[in-house]
Amino acid sequence: MPAVISMTAATITSPNGSIVLNVDVNSVGEPYYNLSYKDKPVIIDSKLGLAAKEAKFTDQFKILSTDTASFNETWQPVWGEFSEIVNHYNQLEVNLENSNGLLMTVCFRVFDDGMGFRYEFPLQDKANYLAVLDEVTEFNMPANNTMWVIPGDYDTDEYLFTETRISDVTDALKKYNGVHSESQREKELESTVQTPLLMKSDDGLYINVHEAALIGYPAMQLDVDTTTYSLKSHLTPDKLGVRGYLQLPFNTPWRTIIVSDDARDILASQLILNLNEPSKIEDTSWIKPMKFIGVWWEMFTGRQKTWAYSDDYRAKPGVTDYTKLKPNGRHPANTENVKKYIDFAAKHGIDAVLVEGWNEGWEDWASYRKNRQFLFDKPYPDFDLPYLRDYAKEKGVKLVMHHETAANALDYERQLDKAFQFMKDNNYDAVKTGYVGAIIPRSEHHTSQGMVDHAQYVIEKAAEYEIMIDSHEAPRPTGLIRTYPNWLAQESARGGEFESMGGNPPSHTALLPFTRLKGGPMDYTPGLFQTDLSYYGEGKDGKAMTTLARQLALYLTMPSPMQMAADLPENYERFPDAFQFIEDVPVEWRDSKYLEAEPAQYITVARLDKNSDDWYIGAITDDTPREAVIDLSFLPAGEKFIATIYADAPDADWETNPQAYTIKKVNVNNKTKLKQKLARGGGAAIRLQPVK
Amino acid sequence: MPAVISMTAATITSPNGSIVLNVDVNSVGEPYYNLSYKDKPVIIDSKLGLAAKEAKFTDQFKILSTDTASFNETWQPVWGEFSEIVNHYNQLEVNLENSNGLLMTVCFRVFDDGMGFRYEFPLQDKANYLAVLDEVTEFNMPANNTMWVIPGDYDTDEYLFTETRISDVTDALKKYNGVHSESQREKELESTVQTPLLMKSDDGLYINVHEAALIGYPAMQLDVDTTTYSLKSHLTPDKLGVRGYLQLPFNTPWRTIIVSDDARDILASQLILNLNEPSKIEDTSWIKPMKFIGVWWEMFTGRQKTWAYSDDYRAKPGVTDYTKLKPNGRHPANTENVKKYIDFAAKHGIDAVLVEGWNEGWEDWASYRKNRQFLFDKPYPDFDLPYLRDYAKEKGVKLVMHHETAANALDYERQLDKAFQFMKDNNYDAVKTGYVGAIIPRSEHHTSQGMVDHAQYVIEKAAEYEIMIDSHEAPRPTGLIRTYPNWLAQESARGGEFESMGGNPPSHTALLPFTRLKGGPMDYTPGLFQTDLSYYGEGKDGKAMTTLARQLALYLTMPSPMQMAADLPENYERFPDAFQFIEDVPVEWRDSKYLEAEPAQYITVARLDKNSDDWYIGAITDDTPREAVIDLSFLPAGEKFIATIYADAPDADWETNPQAYTIKKVNVNNKTKLKQKLARGGGAAIRLQPVK
Repeated sequence: MPAVISMTAATITSPNGSIVLNVDVNSVGEPYYNLSYKDKPVIIDSKLGLAAKEAKFTDQFKILSTDTASFNETWQPVWGEFSEIVNHYNQLEVNLENSNGLLMTVCFRVFDDGMGFRYEFPLQDKANYLAVLDEVTEFNMPANNTMWVIPGDYDTDEYLFTETRISDVTDALKKYNGVHSESQREKELESTVQTPLLMKSDDGLYINVHEAALIGYPAMQLDVDTTTYSLKSHLTPDKLGVRGYLQLPFNTPWRTIIVSDDARDILASQLILNLNEPSKIEDTSWIKPMKFIGVWWEMFTGRQKTWAYSDDYRAKPGVTDYTKLKPNGRHPANTENVKKYIDFAAKHGIDAVLVEGWNEGWEDWASYRKNRQFLFDKPYPDFDLPYLRDYAKEKGVKLVMHHETAANALDYERQLDKAFQFMKDNNYDAVKTGYVGAIIPRSEHHTSQGMVDHAQYVIEKAAEYEIMIDSHEAPRPTGLIRTYPNWLAQESARGGEFESMGGNPPSHTALLPFTRLKGGPMDYTPGLFQTDLSYYGEGKDGKAMTTLARQLALYLTMPSPMQMAADLPENYERFPDAFQFIEDVPVEWRDSKYLEAEPAQYITVARLDKNSDDWYIGAITDDTPREAVIDLSFLPAGEKFIATIYADAPDADWETNPQAYTIKKVNVNNKTKLKQKLARGGGAAIRLQPVK
Repeated sequence: MPAVISMTAATITSPNGSIVLNVDVNSVGEPYYNLSYKDKPVIIDSKLGLAAKEAKFTDQFKILSTDTASFNETWQPVWGEFSEIVNHYNQLEVNLENSNGLLMTVCFRVFDDGMGFRYEFPLQDKANYLAVLDEVTEFNMPANNTMWVIPGDYDTDEYLFTETRISDVTDALKKYNGVHSESQREKELESTVQTPLLMKSDDGLYINVHEAALIGYPAMQLDVDTTTYSLKSHLTPDKLGVRGYLQLPFNTPWRTIIVSDDARDILASQLILNLNEPSKIEDTSWIKPMKFIGVWWEMFTGRQKTWAYSDDYRAKPGVTDYTKLKPNGRHPANTENVKKYIDFAAKHGIDAVLVEGWNEGWEDWASYRKNRQFLFDKPYPDFDLPYLRDYAKEKGVKLVMHHETAANALDYERQLDKAFQFMKDNNYDAVKTGYVGAIIPRSEHHTSQGMVDHAQYVIEKAAEYEIMIDSHEAPRPTGLIRTYPNWLAQESARGGEFESMGGNPPSHTALLPFTRLKGGPMDYTPGLFQTDLSYYGEGKDGKAMTTLARQLALYLTMPSPMQMAADLPENYERFPDAFQFIEDVPVEWRDSKYLEAEPAQYITVARLDKNSDDWYIGAITDDTPREAVIDLSFLPAGEKFIATIYADAPDADWETNPQAYTIKKVNVNNKTKLKQKLARGGGAAIRLQPVK
């Protein structure tokens, strides 16, 4: 149970006692905290506070009082890795007042797998509005941890990770120069990294730093001090240099630290979801997880296919008569082709079909210099929506809407009601949104407060229309899927599409579950069967660094309630036995067991289907072959299962033989330990069906 | 008829030949023009062009060809000073190509009372998007004209005029330092003035420079060169320094020059309306000009009345339960008080009652540091809207909605559909909008492209809902009332409200019709009867620099289809015979005759009621008493009229005896010349009724 040590300092422990938090103010009244895990320091003395133009909540503080409480509940998410989540923590509220009479409470919640804290600014006489200049939150590391970083950037997180020591971060980030989306800010961000950030200490602790419940506030990045090993919050400013506009009372998002000496605990942690508010949507019956295919990968495969209907770059949505344009003949979002996708989905039990490039505007869209890029209710002439709507309905397949906004959030908001009504009128329930480009309103970045507000505006409006969202290029997730369960997925990291643009090394998907996925599911787009792109000719010669079997495993290691089968139907038709796994694998789970894990190296996870007694297992490795040892002791004692194992063939290798896989069936029970060989860049996927 | 002089230079004249325009390119290919009126130079050689990041349309041009045309039509505005407007001009299109292959057409339209021109950028191979850096349009004066200026400012035009020579502008503008809304820009704007700008030359020409049809482009101000007498366009930038984002094809707004040797022609000119597009609203039957009173002036009179319901500045719309706040007891937008206004309006035939301060948010609204200031569908607890809606309807009176946005255009757009639907649900047809404060999105100024776009978005959305708009603190008007006749009025200048904040000298309302009103009607709020504010006690001791009779004249000299009777009903009850004129005076006209005019000194105008055969005359003077000579020769020959003359009493004076007026009736006909004495700061108002 939590205990207050003295009037001016406070200590609190996690429910099982493994985590200890201390909070105090120093000699100049700066509040600070430290955190330990099983007596190992996780965070050494680290300052707390926030500076605004109008008031500095940083120093001259004294502790007025502390309040402690305990909380233990079990809640049921609408979908996810678990059907029940335990939310168990001890809470410490430290009520501070500074010499100017300013009031601030820091609320800490300590769980067995980490800690969250936030600043709470109550209604008070001495402060009302705040224009935020700086949040001074520190996460000071006791030693020169290993970290897996992507570079600080206000506008994109679509980067590969780099492994580095804290001391070497600045050098490590130099490799991103030039590809960085904000090259003019390279000095400002030269030692800045993004969250969710994963670290590993030499004494064996795994530490994830992120935030939860990002609402009405800019996203946090972290400035790294390479000599003191200090991390400090770096809020995304708007382009006028202000980091946020607040009115009191206001609670910031939670700053989160997940910690364990077992990497699997980081993957299993539900701490970030627990720090978010319960669902604001009362009736969630319309929220339906789904698998989908899409008119999408065609445009990446080097076949010169385009999102645009014509090559006339001067076509303007709402102005040009598109029926008079000359079609370019390379536009896959046409009626006949989409019909084929619908047929494939119907045949294979895939829920839905995404169609990109269906609407007016793609001829010349990627420019912040225009004020209207797209119309969201104007199909291209070759996309017969009434026909496809009825055809899909008849086949029992849903169409997934696509709203690329070209980052013009202002115009998207102007069209939003009409766009969502158009969806409902045409039987669409879900939309993939996109924000490629420089943001309009032009004062905003992708992760500044204005765009955080925009994302909330869109998700709430979508809920009004009973629409599910899969957002791309939006502020990276912070567990808001609990509050808005219609927010099925986001991109917010370098996804599978990059297999056609430089590739993702196998370590990438062995890091994302430790980092990006802590905020919520990713629309990673797994399921690539034709991994050697030279197959398509036309100068494409990249090879995705993955075996085919590994792509099946990703459906388990990268769980999402909106999961794509990314490859072309024609490629799936070439491997029907392997595609059977994608057909079978669920997208929501009753339970999940992380069996093996080491960041950037390997992950093995077992999940229980939410709607049956089938278990599914995914195992991946990095660029080194590996034997996964899959201990099935989690299975119910005494019950027999048949395991269908989709595995790398003995001679499989992402580079030389990616499509070599085997499928075999074996009998297993809770005594079984499967030893499963994973190729270089390989993986395995297993379905376990009870023998009745 | 227009005539082309040569292949590389062009000349065109106005229909009656009084105005001559020459256009050519100089030795470095810079296009230029000059303009004369009755052989007097109006504008000497002045450059044309536009510079963007992507392409410079400024020099290396040659004239490819010229096209000429003539146009003569008569059109009927929905409301206004005339029931018919003649649109008669000769047009010259100069088609230019520069050495980089860039294409630009300058289209000139020359009328008998001036000229408009715009840049037309056609679809072309060498340019598509433009990020505008500078428009180089010059208006070079041949001599050191007198000008009446308000200072350049990206965010407000609520200034008094200063009379100055061009050579002295910089010094003249220094007086605005400190009161200027953008003091940090005083260097950038130190010699900049706003349009509509009025000048007078020593050889007797009156010249107005402004723009028409401001759509999709920033507002234009004018940089003054005090040594060369050059005026140059200065487009309002966004806060990132870009002046506009265009995609070709694009036509800029028209740059307008109204010129005459008779000041009355400037007032009568419809040139700016003629350069705007015809109405985009097909069925205009729902657009109804109106007179209105309002719960408004009470808050200015020093009675400590407030827009806010309570004094709790921490109340937040949508968060706070306003029914639990302590009312401050000084909130005039309450049911009982509004009911009195409705009663007064019904009794006196006033169409409508504006109520300001009816909705949640006024406790603490004027801050760009918050993201939501107001809700537009949440009445205060003491404003019983269902009751008042029904009561007003029963009395045949309309309520006028008020949407103060605190300049948060972003949030206003988010609420707009709901706000307009709320109006329609509650029988409101018209709304006064307000944009006090710094603009959100924070990259915008009040007159930058983004806010011009916002204004168009709002007026078009209003038209969808059949709502009329009276916009305050919006970009100043440019004749768009022709295209959107539901845009009844705007503020966009220092209005009557300033009689409670420093006062408006009488010359102010003798300048506004020559300047601000050329863009469209102003909601000036005339009708102040209690001009000595010390009447209200509590430290208010200002005296409006106007007699009571002059306030009646303003209904003619400041015509508007949405015309307020600004004073308190109780003050009108004290002067019922004078108020009769406000009851009688129409707000739309069949014809208008400007009888006498000199900028900053005097205006006398006669107008024929659109819906009867009654004429109304208004005459005002400045701070000097004057005898208006009112020649009634415009009356139909042989018909007799009774004139009811509301005049300053012999001893009237704005300072010492403002409420001294006389009302007398005389018989008149088209031979009559009325000699009407106007007091210092005085005026006269006359109704002429035919004797049947």
